[in-house]
Amino acid sequence: MCGIFAYLNYNVHRERRYILELLFNGLRRLEYRGYDSAGISIDSDSVPSADLGRNFPANSMNPLVFRQEGKIDQLVRSVYEEVDETRLDLDQTFSVHTGIAHTRWATHGPPSPRNSHPQSSGEGNEFLVVHNGIVTNYVVLKETLVRHGFKFESETDTEVIPKLAKFVFDKLSEEGGRPTFSQVVLEVMRQLEGAYALIFKSPHYPNELVACKRGSPLLLGLKEFKENSDGGTPFNDVKFLTKTDNPKELFLSSDANALIEHTKQVLVIEDDEVVHLKDGGISILKFDSDNAKATGGLPRPASVQRALSILEMEVEQIKKGNYEHYMQKEIHEQPESLKTTMSGRLIQEGPGKVKGILLGGLKDYLKTIRRSRRIVFIGCGTSYNAALAARPFVEELSGVPVSMEIASDLLDRQGPIYREDTAVFVSQSGETADTLLALDYAKKNGALCVGITNTVGSALARNTHCGIHINAGAEIGVASTKAYTSQIVVMTMLALAVGDDSISSKSRREAIIDNLFDLPNKVREVLQLDDEMKDLAKLLMDEQSLLMFGRGYNYATALEGALKVKEVALMHSEGMLAGEMKHGPLALVDETLPIVVIATRDACFSKQQSVIQQLHARKGRLIVMCTKGDASVVCPGGSCRAIEVPAVEDCLQPVINIIPLQLLAYHLTVLRGFDVDQPRNLAKSVTTQ
Amino acid sequence: MCGIFAYLNYNVHRERRYILELLFNGLRRLEYRGYDSAGISIDSDSVPSADLGRNFPANSMNPLVFRQEGKIDQLVRSVYEEVDETRLDLDQTFSVHTGIAHTRWATHGPPSPRNSHPQSSGEGNEFLVVHNGIVTNYVVLKETLVRHGFKFESETDTEVIPKLAKFVFDKLSEEGGRPTFSQVVLEVMRQLEGAYALIFKSPHYPNELVACKRGSPLLLGLKEFKENSDGGTPFNDVKFLTKTDNPKELFLSSDANALIEHTKQVLVIEDDEVVHLKDGGISILKFDSDNAKATGGLPRPASVQRALSILEMEVEQIKKGNYEHYMQKEIHEQPESLKTTMSGRLIQEGPGKVKGILLGGLKDYLKTIRRSRRIVFIGCGTSYNAALAARPFVEELSGVPVSMEIASDLLDRQGPIYREDTAVFVSQSGETADTLLALDYAKKNGALCVGITNTVGSALARNTHCGIHINAGAEIGVASTKAYTSQIVVMTMLALAVGDDSISSKSRREAIIDNLFDLPNKVREVLQLDDEMKDLAKLLMDEQSLLMFGRGYNYATALEGALKVKEVALMHSEGMLAGEMKHGPLALVDETLPIVVIATRDACFSKQQSVIQQLHARKGRLIVMCTKGDASVVCPGGSCRAIEVPAVEDCLQPVINIIPLQLLAYHLTVLRGFDVDQPRNLAKSVTTQ
Repeated sequence: MCGIFAYLNYNVHRERRYILELLFNGLRRLEYRGYDSAGISIDSDSVPSADLGRNFPANSMNPLVFRQEGKIDQLVRSVYEEVDETRLDLDQTFSVHTGIAHTRWATHGPPSPRNSHPQSSGEGNEFLVVHNGIVTNYVVLKETLVRHGFKFESETDTEVIPKLAKFVFDKLSEEGGRPTFSQVVLEVMRQLEGAYALIFKSPHYPNELVACKRGSPLLLGLKEFKENSDGGTPFNDVKFLTKTDNPKELFLSSDANALIEHTKQVLVIEDDEVVHLKDGGISILKFDSDNAKATGGLPRPASVQRALSILEMEVEQIKKGNYEHYMQKEIHEQPESLKTTMSGRLIQEGPGKVKGILLGGLKDYLKTIRRSRRIVFIGCGTSYNAALAARPFVEELSGVPVSMEIASDLLDRQGPIYREDTAVFVSQSGETADTLLALDYAKKNGALCVGITNTVGSALARNTHCGIHINAGAEIGVASTKAYTSQIVVMTMLALAVGDDSISSKSRREAIIDNLFDLPNKVREVLQLDDEMKDLAKLLMDEQSLLMFGRGYNYATALEGALKVKEVALMHSEGMLAGEMKHGPLALVDETLPIVVIATRDACFSKQQSVIQQLHARKGRLIVMCTKGDASVVCPGGSCRAIEVPAVEDCLQPVINIIPLQLLAYHLTVLRGFDVDQPRNLAKSVTTQ
Repeated sequence: MCGIFAYLNYNVHRERRYILELLFNGLRRLEYRGYDSAGISIDSDSVPSADLGRNFPANSMNPLVFRQEGKIDQLVRSVYEEVDETRLDLDQTFSVHTGIAHTRWATHGPPSPRNSHPQSSGEGNEFLVVHNGIVTNYVVLKETLVRHGFKFESETDTEVIPKLAKFVFDKLSEEGGRPTFSQVVLEVMRQLEGAYALIFKSPHYPNELVACKRGSPLLLGLKEFKENSDGGTPFNDVKFLTKTDNPKELFLSSDANALIEHTKQVLVIEDDEVVHLKDGGISILKFDSDNAKATGGLPRPASVQRALSILEMEVEQIKKGNYEHYMQKEIHEQPESLKTTMSGRLIQEGPGKVKGILLGGLKDYLKTIRRSRRIVFIGCGTSYNAALAARPFVEELSGVPVSMEIASDLLDRQGPIYREDTAVFVSQSGETADTLLALDYAKKNGALCVGITNTVGSALARNTHCGIHINAGAEIGVASTKAYTSQIVVMTMLALAVGDDSISSKSRREAIIDNLFDLPNKVREVLQLDDEMKDLAKLLMDEQSLLMFGRGYNYATALEGALKVKEVALMHSEGMLAGEMKHGPLALVDETLPIVVIATRDACFSKQQSVIQQLHARKGRLIVMCTKGDASVVCPGGSCRAIEVPAVEDCLQPVINIIPLQLLAYHLTVLRGFDVDQPRNLAKSVTTQ
């Protein structure tokens, strides 16, 4: 739920102003992950005080810490104000310097400067830490540290980490040897439980950074300036054998969005790896938690050799282009994102080719899926809704019963999962904590685990047996839009692949494949409802409540449409199964409450017509989404407002139908004056339980 | 959704006033089934007009029809006004007379006098019909009848029935013979599709009634006055061989509530039976739909011999006693209803006895259930929520994955159901249309079908392979309360019975059985929160929205608590899975929106504590339900309002936890000035799709 970022320039001269702006920009790219407070640390002009009673290296500088409640822009303002007051020289240049930064989404302790990161070891900021994740044993650690005289200032779980680092550093120093920075961090890791990605900065180790992770995501980016190249690899073992003096910039970030404008050369850091940046070199150590616990002494980690990978993103993906907001951009780029999703996966008939679906990552597993006792779809929020939308078609083509599980509920219940089950995990970020924990659980129980994610190299992609990337491109708006439609299309393709051995469904499958080819055009068509949805939003903007009724394929549409309105427009909207209307919700219906009914043509259409009639009989204020040409059928005599959408095959209709509701949620939010891309209280990927 | 009622007095002198009041009272007992309009028909003083061009029998009287929009009391007022205006003699006595009555819940056409029942054949009211159900082919029938010159006055589906009766009567009369009343009705049935229970009255057949049913429930009640008894049975075959002149009263009713104060001798009429009441005799014919269609001619039905059964209800069950409302009474009688639910089913340890569960109706099926590939729980509304509450424990003890299906969604999706599945159907009334259709579907697909219902003799009880009655006693409040807790207990007992072959769960099972014995006492204890809930209701009565968060065993509690508030207090409340909070709903949280969090002690308690902390961090307005003694744990420093409830075994906690929320919904409704027992737009059992 937080974003962490660090910047190290080596043998490249950078002004303090430049470093500050680079850190701020990194935070802005990560802001969607959390935006209730933020902070940075850079070096000052002064050396650490001798009062601290430690021998600091000669080149060490006092770290400056800036922390502020609110969004990044508030931090920026307050930093420049403080710079003005303290007359800090923004033009000072550093040939080597380390800066760390953090944007927060509060889990422990309300947003406030003292709860923001970097968290500190105390006076003198001997150790500073930025953290994404949750330390689950912080209460115990805190008690111990308090007994050792540490004074805590924040309500965060994070504060134990820098204090523990200082404690470890002092202890190891007293025992004689001077520990390396990574030794300190390894010893800290040995004490921590929970999920985390951490970056450490310390005046004891000037111009060094150490990062480590377990559970939460972390990437390293490298930008080398070739003019001085001597061909040496920057990847070294623990002994720093190769010290390359090439000028370079190194970045650490929670995700690729903050890296892409600097470099495409990245390294996805794995769980239990410790990355030490020092003297232009990068060394990676593997923390062996079992071994560490067994020996009790100082951990002796193995060094790791890793190769860089190249990001496939483009900088444009993380910019808004001509749009006001990321959410708006992402809604409107759905014709393109869906095309990318299907690219290379739809096979058109041709010489020696049968119309079909090619899912490379799955083809060895299709038989197993077909034979499984159940398919269990597991996800949270929008990803769950996407799975729900695809469920009827997966059931139809596979003949296998599909169970729906909200990841946290499966974990709470410890519901039965067996070897005969296929568990399909859906997560845009691939880092959703609940979904990953459910994945662990299902794997332990022997199920075949299939991943569906937008994020190459994510924990979900790495830890499932097989899977499909949805390739929708970076999604930055916190409210998921294009990932939702791509997820549905991917699961529809999954159903087509699983069902492709059945003769009886052949014509049905071919009709849907034809529809898939044409789907981006239909999406383009439905996006033309933009102005109409804006008008509707004007009509509804002052409402307190909104209901959405759907059924069959579009039950999910009602849930997802309501979720969008809820999470960005902050209006209490509820999605409901239309078939349950008479079992309670109908009581709410009167002349004032607006109700969206999704009634496009499919096998449930006549039942949905009957629902509309009954809502009419109760004088309900209806907005009916219907198939183009049906307005007079669903709203005889113009008795309600109709939204006409293009028709596609029933199982793909949810892809079309959600779009007007995405637009409605977007315009409602803008009109109500709320933040579209960073809705109150929410973060993009929920990487804690 | 409607209630139908008829009264025939034979050889018993009754004043018109008495007959009217008896019909009104019958409707009041059925009013919970539907209450947006009502109507009755009795005989007038005048004979039918000769202008109608038919020979009416000498003893025939013109029927009077009274219909009114609104509740029964409005009908009563308007009837007495009209009686005054027309100077109808209320003191006139009849030794034999037939009256029919109807209370309506609109499905086709808004509430209005012309859409109320009895529906008529037209001028002269030659045939009058009251109907519960839906005629699905009414459009086609209407077109045909319009072609034959019939003029329709209402928007109902029902109106085709009396008009069809007249058409059939005229046709058969023209062909020479004079048809019997039941022949006319049998021919009408041959044309009707859909679900119905019907009562016919006609001046062509003075003092006769014919009733028939398919799908919708119908009961016949008999009260004999023994002084003149000659021992003859009132059940005759089609030829009316035995005419018993014993004074008697006959009643037809949609359910037992309207009968119990008159008689306990009843006959549950089965699908396709036609009951003809004439000259003090009762004849029952079986309509053979296949045969009728094959021969094309006049149906030749078989007569049926049936035995009366005795209602086990007591009159007290349908009266409010010292309570203001049925819902209130039913909430407070839960200690007793739960005791009855468990009565004879819990086995205490003793000589030669092992602590366990005895479910007579299920014992031959336990092995099959244990071996099934899935258990599928199917229900609607509150019954679905009860199944959801029981699900984790059924999964735990059976080890079989439990799928949850809302009945209408299963039908919409035509989801896979196989021979290896056990499908468990839950319905208080046993007549819920969606649940019954899902039952048909599951049976056709070969699943073992288990019924859980409160209504002996209901369609659910009759059509499942096996089942358990919840024995909670008549539930009249439209918002289900005591049935919910009894359903959970029954499904818990089901889990105990299915799991009783496992050694590893023995101590767990025994602990729960001990808890079940004590459960009524704990329920009595939690009911003492009544005043506290009233205070809370005062605090919340003007709110627009209310959220309820639960998880694990109490996910269902959140859904059901919110459903109660929604359906009676007409407040937009939404139940949510606490684990999904961060995936969207958290955006709604601010200082104003009240939020109920259920956080009693169980394995999810610490996760729920973390949810509370996060809601606190967002300044949420919290009401936390916690285990007795935990108030200071969940609300440190009195930071929120706590509701302390007694602790029971985790899987039974939902039974305790729902009760404060039932009380809250009740008090909110009273304070907001809404009708508790007959909430807007809702009917008790939803007997149409």
